[in-house]
Order: sequence, then C-alpha cells, then structure tokens
Amino acid sequence: MIFADRMDEVKASAIRAVGKIIAQKKGVISFAAGLPDPTLFPFDEMHAVTDKLLKEDAMVALQYGPTQGHGPLLEKLCTLLKERDNVDAKSENLIITTGSQQGISFCSMIMLNPGDVVITENPSYLGAINAFRPYQCNFVGVDIDEDGMIMEDLEKALQENPNTKMIYVIPNFQNPTGKTWSKERCEKLIELANKYDVIVIEDDPYGQLRFRGESVPTLKSMDTQERVISLGSFSKVLCPGLRVAWMCGSKDMIEKVELLKQGADLQCNQLAQMQVLEFLNNYDFEKHIDKIRTAYGNKCQLMLDTMKAEFPPEAKYTEPEGGMFVWVELPGHIDTTELLNKAIESNVAFVPGESFYPLCDCKSSLRLNFTTVSEENIVEGIKILGSVLKEEIKSSQA
Amino acid sequence: MIFADRMDEVKASAIRAVGKIIAQKKGVISFAAGLPDPTLFPFDEMHAVTDKLLKEDAMVALQYGPTQGHGPLLEKLCTLLKERDNVDAKSENLIITTGSQQGISFCSMIMLNPGDVVITENPSYLGAINAFRPYQCNFVGVDIDEDGMIMEDLEKALQENPNTKMIYVIPNFQNPTGKTWSKERCEKLIELANKYDVIVIEDDPYGQLRFRGESVPTLKSMDTQERVISLGSFSKVLCPGLRVAWMCGSKDMIEKVELLKQGADLQCNQLAQMQVLEFLNNYDFEKHIDKIRTAYGNKCQLMLDTMKAEFPPEAKYTEPEGGMFVWVELPGHIDTTELLNKAIESNVAFVPGESFYPLCDCKSSLRLNFTTVSEENIVEGIKILGSVLKEEIKSSQA
Repeated sequence: MIFADRMDEVKASAIRAVGKIIAQKKGVISFAAGLPDPTLFPFDEMHAVTDKLLKEDAMVALQYGPTQGHGPLLEKLCTLLKERDNVDAKSENLIITTGSQQGISFCSMIMLNPGDVVITENPSYLGAINAFRPYQCNFVGVDIDEDGMIMEDLEKALQENPNTKMIYVIPNFQNPTGKTWSKERCEKLIELANKYDVIVIEDDPYGQLRFRGESVPTLKSMDTQERVISLGSFSKVLCPGLRVAWMCGSKDMIEKVELLKQGADLQCNQLAQMQVLEFLNNYDFEKHIDKIRTAYGNKCQLMLDTMKAEFPPEAKYTEPEGGMFVWVELPGHIDTTELLNKAIESNVAFVPGESFYPLCDCKSSLRLNFTTVSEENIVEGIKILGSVLKEEIKSSQA
Repeated sequence: MIFADRMDEVKASAIRAVGKIIAQKKGVISFAAGLPDPTLFPFDEMHAVTDKLLKEDAMVALQYGPTQGHGPLLEKLCTLLKERDNVDAKSENLIITTGSQQGISFCSMIMLNPGDVVITENPSYLGAINAFRPYQCNFVGVDIDEDGMIMEDLEKALQENPNTKMIYVIPNFQNPTGKTWSKERCEKLIELANKYDVIVIEDDPYGQLRFRGESVPTLKSMDTQERVISLGSFSKVLCPGLRVAWMCGSKDMIEKVELLKQGADLQCNQLAQMQVLEFLNNYDFEKHIDKIRTAYGNKCQLMLDTMKAEFPPEAKYTEPEGGMFVWVELPGHIDTTELLNKAIESNVAFVPGESFYPLCDCKSSLRLNFTTVSEENIVEGIKILGSVLKEEIKSSQA
C-alpha cells in the first residue's frame, strides 16, 4: 500500500508513547498526563441537563444538525466572548469544532501549502506541531522568556522567512512551559503580524485557569485586521469527553472552514453541544471554574514547594500563574528521553521535552502535570524525581 | 488572506444549498433531505443507557479517552462485524470516526497525493466527492447499471489511469441512486482491485436497511489482500447526532489513521461511544433496525406507487430494495438545477443530480428522499412534482 507523501511527516505523540510504557508497569506516579482532574467535573449538573434534553428535546439532540454548530450555542458563545474576552463576534464568526485540536487542524488545512512556514513558540504544544506536520510545512521556533515570545527573534524570523503563513501561540499558561505572555508582548505580536501580513492562531484552552496574578487581554481583542483566529474550548473547564470547542475568526475564513468541515466530518456531536449550552444557561459557569482554579492552584503550589525542597539546584523550573503544567530545564547534556527510563524504574514518569520543540533540537527539558495527581502522590513523586535528577547530575559530573 | 491552493477545489454541498432556499419559504414539501426519520430513534432506550452511564461511569464518559476509540466498543464491533458481515476483524483493525464522513476524509488524507486518481460510481455520494476534493485528486466516474458498477468500464478506467489510488463505492442502496450491486459485480471488483493494485473504499451506511430482496456479501468479506477499507456507521440505524462510526482495515493502515486522528481531533466524543455500546449490550439492535426497515419499506413503496401514477413516462426512476433514496432520470436536455426553482415555486423540493457526478457532467437527474416525509406529504409532494415534470417536458417539446 502506497501512502501519500504527507504521511512521511506524521509522528506519534510522545505523550501517548509514555502512556503506553506506564500502562505496562504498575505503581508509577505519572506527571506525564495532560488531562483535567475528573473529580472536578460537574457530574450532577451534567446529569440533570442531559436528562432534561433527552426528555424534552431528543428529536433534535439525536438528529443531524448544522455543520457550523448548534445555533443557540453559537449565540451564547458570542455573549460569553464579549463578556469574558472583550471580543465582538457574531455567529458568522464562529464554528464549533471537535476540541481545539480540530481547530488547529482546520487552520493548517485552510492555510498551508507545502513549504509554507509556521512560526511557533519554542517549545510549543506537541499536538499542534503534529497537526501541522501532514501539511508539509516548515517550522521556525522562536524562543520564549518569562514574558512570552521574544519579539526581536520573532521579527528576525519573519524577515528571514517571507513565506511565513502563520504564527501559532498559546499566550496563557502555555503547554508545555506554563509561561504567560505580557500585555506588551501581545501588542507587539499583533503589530508584527500586521506589518508582515501573517495570520495569528491564538490557542487558549487554559486562559480561564488563572490561580495567581492579573489576567492579560486576549490577542483576539487586540485584533483590528481580522488577522487572529482564536481557539477556545470547554475541555479544560467543563468536560473534555464531550469534545466541544470553537474557532473564532473572520466571516470569510469561517465560511471556508465550514466547507472543510462538511467534508471532514459533517458536524460535531449534537447532544454534546446542547449539553454545554444547557449547562451554561442553568448553572454558574464562573463559580464552577473557580472551584477548578482553587484546586489547581493548591496542587501547583504543593508541587513547586516540594520541588524547591527536593530538586537539585541545577534543575530550573517555571512557576506558572495558571494552567496545568510546570516545565523543568536541566543542564544541556542531559537527555530526558533516556532519563525517562530511569525515572520509570523508580516509579515516576514525565514527558520528555524534545517533542515539544518543532525541530526536536533540545533534549534536556521535561514537562510535569499537576492536575491529575493526588496531593500525596505529588509529594511522593516529586521526591522520587528529585532523587533521580540528583543521581543523574551527579553521575554526569563524575 | 491567502488560502492554501487546496481551497480552490472545495465546494459547498448542493444539499445544504437547497436546504437554505427551502428554509426561506414556508410550506415546501422537501424530498431534498438525507436524514433518517427521527420519530424512529430509540428515545427511551437512549435515555435509559445515558442515565446509567452518567450515574455509574461519568468519570470515564466525560474524560478524555483513547484516540482509536473506546476499547469495549471496538471489541463489540468485532463481534458485530463477524456475525453480521462475516468479517474477521480484531480491535487493531478498527478505529472510531466522527461519522463515516470522517472515514472518507481520512482515506483521502492517508492515500492521496495531488493528481492521484479516485474512481467513483457515476453518480456517487456528493459528500464523498467533496471530501476528496481538498486533496487535489482527479476523478474518474464509472457508470452503473441495475447490478452496480459496469466492470468493463472499470477495467478500462484502471488501464487508462495507472495512477489510480482508490475506488470508492457504496454497494448497498447507493446514495444517490438507491441501486445495489450484485454479488458477481462485487467479486469482479475485488478481482480487478487485486490485479491493478488499488485500494477499495466500501462505504456502507445503508446496508442494514434492506426492506426487499436478498442481501449481498460485503466487499470486506471477499477481501483476501487487506485491500478493502470498509466504513460503517450508527447514523442511519441508531442516531446520527451521536456521530459514531468506524473504519475497518489493515492494522498498518489503522495505525496511520490513528496518528492522523491525534492531529485532526484527538478522539471522538467519549460519552457517545459508551451510549452506543450500552445500547448494543442492553437492547435488541436487530429488532430496532427491523422497525426502521418496515417503516422505510412502506414509505418507499408509497412513493413508487404514487410516482407510477403521477410521473410522465419520460421520467425513469430506480426501485430500491433498501436505503433512503429514489433516483429520477429525465430527458437529457432538462437541467434539474433550473427545474428546482420551478418546483420550489410549486412547493416541492429535491436535490438536483449534477453535483453527485464527480465531473458535474450530467444535469438531467434528481434525488428524492422518502424517509423524513410523512405518508400524506409523500403523496401530495409526488403529485405536485409529477405536474412540474409534465409541464417541463411539455414545454421543452413545444
């Protein structure tokens, strides 16, 4: 069987690879996941809204619906985006997607010719990098510091790559680093995107999960040229299993995406869209998110406190203001893909950092998730990982 | 904004276009839909299984799950495929997709380089044609008669197009024609696919909806070279709003599709997969389908009887043994896209046949759906359409 050329670019997710290794060994404390804490799902509320829908509106909930999405949900999203993100969107600016993952995939499909350049943060979300790959683009990674992407480096990248089509960024509590962009960096990004005439994809699954500090305006709210495509999702603030997310962009762009979606999968699950809408209409969404923020803030602080006590000084790590991840950078000669085997032998797991770099050119970092691990296991697992790191650094210096 | 070259190929669905016209005019009897009859959905059963899942298993149902699909559903499908279609499949041969539409899209993405040839029945499902288009392939349509694709024409097409990658067919009660392939044609297709080393995509959403005649073995059951990718779906036999369907193929191919799906949308709705599984485990699926068969068989017969009485002799039409559609062929000089406007003025609608032809080179046919129209409206609508057709033929002869 001869596959299409694009399949040469497609890679397996490193996160899934780690998952498979862990599944074969019991007793591993895993910081490798990227899942929300399922004990925080609004079980009773979801049960109640679903019960109501299947009693009163099952003929609609179980039937085909519009490709663009359930009309009343689109309208509700317009209100939400205005109130929350100061974004003026009409229904025609929105389309419902199967997770933001599908939004990233559609952005690629609609925009990328083979050889086009995609600029990402370096490192960036590996699921996005893998979504771009089949479109045979070239990647340019731009380094980030504590305030986000370094703008001098970005402008240099734009100058050197005139065939850049888009810049993909996660400004809030980025996956994998947990870093957040400053308002100044966001404004500068928009300025450069306008100057060099490129599209910006703003992926914001974690934006609502801020447990410390001041929130930063969204890129979409700063966009005066319909240049930003923003991706939002209910996966991290409600339930990911429903797969309800959205894209927000220009009418012209959304119309094209709608045509693509007709061919790609016709539409998202109809019941799930109505479940989300009913939840939003009947319950206090902000109060629910607040519960998640508090829980994640506590877990994050516990992880950071334990790291402070247990990690060797050579290990540098981020101190996120929200989201789900802490990022650890080790001395450059340490290969965390190799280190993972030793860690799993000691019953602790993480995701090696390599695959978060679009060019896979940095091997000495790793990602830790704090949302799905119990407080007890956070302490225990970080202690073990601290020992593994100390041993590794010691033996590499010997 | 500069879109990718592939977007030049993407077209709007003609069915949706008709839908939008009808939505603006009240009182139109529409045979244009392609939806199952929602009054036949198993409401009480779906309510009961959903209630159970959200009580007992919500932590799994609302959380992320495997990209390939919910494990127990994959296992259940293996049993179903063995019992029903005589297909030997293991879980590794299956992946859950968002409708068969996503299966068609993945087949394109995994196989097609720009310029590759896709052979389809002529006419074929327009949603498939539109799913292939963004992959910049070339189409060759092979005519069908009452026994399916004409094999002499297929072999000629394969000889003339050495860069043919795949043959896409709907052997049972095809959309749009309602025609069904004979066993001999199916066997010959497999023989030719083996000889010319091409992939066969067997799209079978309607196979269970036979209300007359003898069933024909699936192409997948005749496949000895792992050359057939078969697409199945619960949309037409349970509820389309859940968007649960599957692809069945070689382990090698399914692994590639799983990688694509990681990038495309991570996974299907988890709750929906569990709803389908619970339904299959707790209720008599065959009995439920039997109810649909009887209802559709009656409506189809009523439509055919009314057509016999009301249509002019120049209108030729199929007499399907199952599925959801009747296909009408008019004298070649009649353009049904133009005729649709006159029909809508008279308060009846259909889908013009043109867009079901991959090369859009036949304008004189039309598709009628009988599943979502009431018996009263079938009689009334066909009477009106009969008058419109008689008038059109009369005036075109004048």
